[in-house]
Amino acid sequence: MNFCSDCGQPVRVGIPDDDNRPRHICDHCNTIHYQNPKIVAGTIPVYGDKILLCKRAIEPRHGYWTLPAGFMENHETTADAAWRETWEEAQAKVNIQQLYMLIDTTVISQVYMIFLAELPEPIFSSGPESLEVELFSEDEIPWSELAFPTIEKTLRCYFEDRKKGQFPLHQCDISKEDRDRFYAAEKQAQHLS
Amino acid sequence: MNFCSDCGQPVRVGIPDDDNRPRHICDHCNTIHYQNPKIVAGTIPVYGDKILLCKRAIEPRHGYWTLPAGFMENHETTADAAWRETWEEAQAKVNIQQLYMLIDTTVISQVYMIFLAELPEPIFSSGPESLEVELFSEDEIPWSELAFPTIEKTLRCYFEDRKKGQFPLHQCDISKEDRDRFYAAEKQAQHLS
Ligand SMILES: [Zn+2]
Ligand SMILES: [Zn+2]
Repeated sequence: MNFCSDCGQPVRVGIPDDDNRPRHICDHCNTIHYQNPKIVAGTIPVYGDKILLCKRAIEPRHGYWTLPAGFMENHETTADAAWRETWEEAQAKVNIQQLYMLIDTTVISQVYMIFLAELPEPIFSSGPESLEVELFSEDEIPWSELAFPTIEKTLRCYFEDRKKGQFPLHQCDISKEDRDRFYAAEKQAQHLS
Repeated sequence: MNFCSDCGQPVRVGIPDDDNRPRHICDHCNTIHYQNPKIVAGTIPVYGDKILLCKRAIEPRHGYWTLPAGFMENHETTADAAWRETWEEAQAKVNIQQLYMLIDTTVISQVYMIFLAELPEPIFSSGPESLEVELFSEDEIPWSELAFPTIEKTLRCYFEDRKKGQFPLHQCDISKEDRDRFYAAEKQAQHLS
């Protein structure tokens, strides 16, 4: 942020009175511009013993597999956002069940909220942001071609919980180290192959 | 938003290609400025059979009672945000337990995430944003002086669940009608008193 979105004058970075963090401050119109984490809402669409993944047609991570998920919009609920993203990316109409993963990715200030969802019929296709959409059983998951560490974490939790038949809410965070490890492991795999 | 925060030129509102919602668009530097919901993180600090409430020293709702809660900051986890807000508003150090309320307030694009928390010792005081901080048993809760419908909803759920001894995650939304009812009921109460 370089300019005030209210009045168009340059902003400075400083700690306002009664605050303890640097903010973007406009001295011209006396506005403090706050920046806050974004919610990424999505689903695990479950059809029988398979789950639905999308191959990304957009950056970042073009060509990698992901669960349908994306930024929540203003004026919608988290569950509606998860449903909408599943519709937009996989053209699939799911029944949202419960919140299953709450993942804080502090490095990039994103909060992932992934819902368990039932895909009642195997009807889906690629939305504009997907190259392919496919059902995968556990042993078919393309582990080395997953888009994000949050997706790997979610899938590992899911298949583990499925053995136990219990799906409690998982709350975890993906640290900088987790991210570095995820992307390094992938480079390693590409190098070896 | 009137001006581009990147280049300072005026923005226009329009629906970008490959999108279906109006956004703030800067044609000068070709940037689309998205706006997303904000997370409000907080706690129910529980000490024995009492819970801790704060009387707000700031607008909106100056002088009304609330649970300690506030906007999540970049680069922190949701649980850390809830802990920090409890510390800042009530000078209380809690042990965060589980996510308990996930409340979508679509009218104002806020997502409330309230955690159950243990207050191990009755040590607390007013932070800069609170006029008073006090422990309340169920029959002492100032129901007609609560700051927000999300807070009323959370407290009602909590005391009901406490009778059953079970605290499942509650997921709900506060609609425009719920908000109107909440603030109207309060006006009514003031008028009668
Ligand atoms: Zn300004
Ligand atoms: Zn611009």
